[in-house]
Amino acid sequence: MNTSTTTVTVVGGGVIGLSVAWRAAARGWRVTVVDPDPVHGGASWLAGGMLAPVTEAWPGEEAVLSLGEASLRRWPSFARELVAEGTDPGLAEHGTIVVGFDSADAGHLDILAGYLRSLGRDVETLTGREAKRLAPGLGSVRSGLHVPGDLAVDNRKLLTALSEAATKRGVEFRRERLESLSEVSGPVILAAGAWTGQLHPLLEHAVRPLKGEILRLRPRRGCLPPPPYTVRAMVEGRPIYLVPREDGELVLGATQYEAGFDQAVTARGVRELLEGAERILPGITEYELVELAAGLRAASRDALPYIGEVSEGVYAATGHHRNGLLMAPATADAVVAWLAGEAPPPEVAAATPARLEKERV
Amino acid sequence: MNTSTTTVTVVGGGVIGLSVAWRAAARGWRVTVVDPDPVHGGASWLAGGMLAPVTEAWPGEEAVLSLGEASLRRWPSFARELVAEGTDPGLAEHGTIVVGFDSADAGHLDILAGYLRSLGRDVETLTGREAKRLAPGLGSVRSGLHVPGDLAVDNRKLLTALSEAATKRGVEFRRERLESLSEVSGPVILAAGAWTGQLHPLLEHAVRPLKGEILRLRPRRGCLPPPPYTVRAMVEGRPIYLVPREDGELVLGATQYEAGFDQAVTARGVRELLEGAERILPGITEYELVELAAGLRAASRDALPYIGEVSEGVYAATGHHRNGLLMAPATADAVVAWLAGEAPPPEVAAATPARLEKERV
Repeated sequence: MNTSTTTVTVVGGGVIGLSVAWRAAARGWRVTVVDPDPVHGGASWLAGGMLAPVTEAWPGEEAVLSLGEASLRRWPSFARELVAEGTDPGLAEHGTIVVGFDSADAGHLDILAGYLRSLGRDVETLTGREAKRLAPGLGSVRSGLHVPGDLAVDNRKLLTALSEAATKRGVEFRRERLESLSEVSGPVILAAGAWTGQLHPLLEHAVRPLKGEILRLRPRRGCLPPPPYTVRAMVEGRPIYLVPREDGELVLGATQYEAGFDQAVTARGVRELLEGAERILPGITEYELVELAAGLRAASRDALPYIGEVSEGVYAATGHHRNGLLMAPATADAVVAWLAGEAPPPEVAAATPARLEKERV
Repeated sequence: MNTSTTTVTVVGGGVIGLSVAWRAAARGWRVTVVDPDPVHGGASWLAGGMLAPVTEAWPGEEAVLSLGEASLRRWPSFARELVAEGTDPGLAEHGTIVVGFDSADAGHLDILAGYLRSLGRDVETLTGREAKRLAPGLGSVRSGLHVPGDLAVDNRKLLTALSEAATKRGVEFRRERLESLSEVSGPVILAAGAWTGQLHPLLEHAVRPLKGEILRLRPRRGCLPPPPYTVRAMVEGRPIYLVPREDGELVLGATQYEAGFDQAVTARGVRELLEGAERILPGITEYELVELAAGLRAASRDALPYIGEVSEGVYAATGHHRNGLLMAPATADAVVAWLAGEAPPPEVAAATPARLEKERV
């Protein structure tokens, strides 16, 4: 295809769509992003911004870990290129600690640590005392893990940076909802998150919304400062995370519900998050609660995204579940490689939508 | 004083200030309300809207009960006159039930019921079963009280109605903060809530802010509907109330903190309210949380407001604590009576600011 005469249409202005649009435009393509509310309208804007393939890992999900790590390795250069475009991608340097409070949590951490070691990953186990030394103010922690390589990004800075960089590279934005692929010609990238299933028959039952509530807090005068690491924990079987931002904000996420396209913030969700956070960081009780929100992750059937051609010239880039921000660089690289007739990052192969065809047979 | 040439200045555009302004203007006075953000800017806008002197009663606070009941008796005609002005004051017909969950609560309710009966007040004691029959969906209630005469008002409808009625009667609004009484001539009414202490030396240490957080929720599709009564309870020693609105909204209040002029919504406040509400009405967990807010009540030293002349031509109408909406009609009637040289409602006598002079001696 000829980059000067062909327009690439990206459906979706979240982190995946904006990353693909920016990288494709930087390679010379004319790109249009179609989204009724790009940047702010979807799950990417609400996310916690963890770039944490290792602490998200679990036995049986090796392909997710492998793709996540491949994308994390691309993150520093991805961020540097955004800086070179004159923008601030908001990449944070701090690592991640995972803490446990009771024997069930300790068992959970033991499984995770053993699994990661069996794969040769760098994990430091912590006593409760050591965890509290790393992150003063933690509650009655029994044990923990320190994963210095699991990073975080300020998702709102990132989306703003991607939008600015894309615009500088000539990307155009059509603020509307694309109803049908018949409206566009040329290559199309389907990156509409939880709504992507409505755009292509192969994805119709493969991508579904996974609701998540997330809160944003700020320490008030006299409060304990936020922890210097991303802190994760299971509280009563629910994963909770606290991600500190450079400006003092603390992101507290996230619930997970199968609730269709419902985006209401519920009393239960907020109460569970606050209770969980108080267990992790008791001093958070006096923080100001500055934002409540609920968004819809794009969940796949097997926790791996769908990245690849679904019909001629139509590429899926969706189903990233909790990992959209993490996997944006690898996803964008894969799509741009296909557009240019080049080879994608090898770890993307497992995410092929062709596995859906097999399920059909 | 001559109503046609004298301008009455009302400092504060909350429920007290607006009620005074409307009633004074209806009696022929020229009235100016000075408030940087009338209607929406203060505690009245955030309140639950309970008109509940009986369920708020407690041994030792007879003067508060007496003034509250005197004002409640004025509420129906106050509302009718607002209707006659072409507005909707939002007065609700439903009564109040108080519920208890454990033996401590049952003891609390026994004290309250015995006290009210000793004063000849109408109180119906309820078994847990009876309470749940009145309000389906209540949690594991042990006992309760039904007080049909304790009403509620949709505070936002009321404030809007008062503002409209006042405007129709020629009241003018100056959207600014009054820094000093020397800026105005003629009679002045001090109704600036928690900020009133800054306006007059006698009130300086008498009125203080009492912070309260309050939430607004809505049932989602498939949810248990809100209770048909205002429901009050003590949960872990904290008073919690649920006030249903005609449009389906449910107001959940309210925390009480001595926190100066701080108006941040805290994690603790929200968590405590949600936990308390779940105990009262377990089905609330699936409600949508539509608003979080914190406001500052004007607390007095003894739970009674300060209503009366504090210097020549300067009248206090503040310190209403949790009872501003309830006591607005009696407060307005008293102030307008003084302006006209008439006798105020007798129950207002106990609220005289002269008691502050005595404390000084």
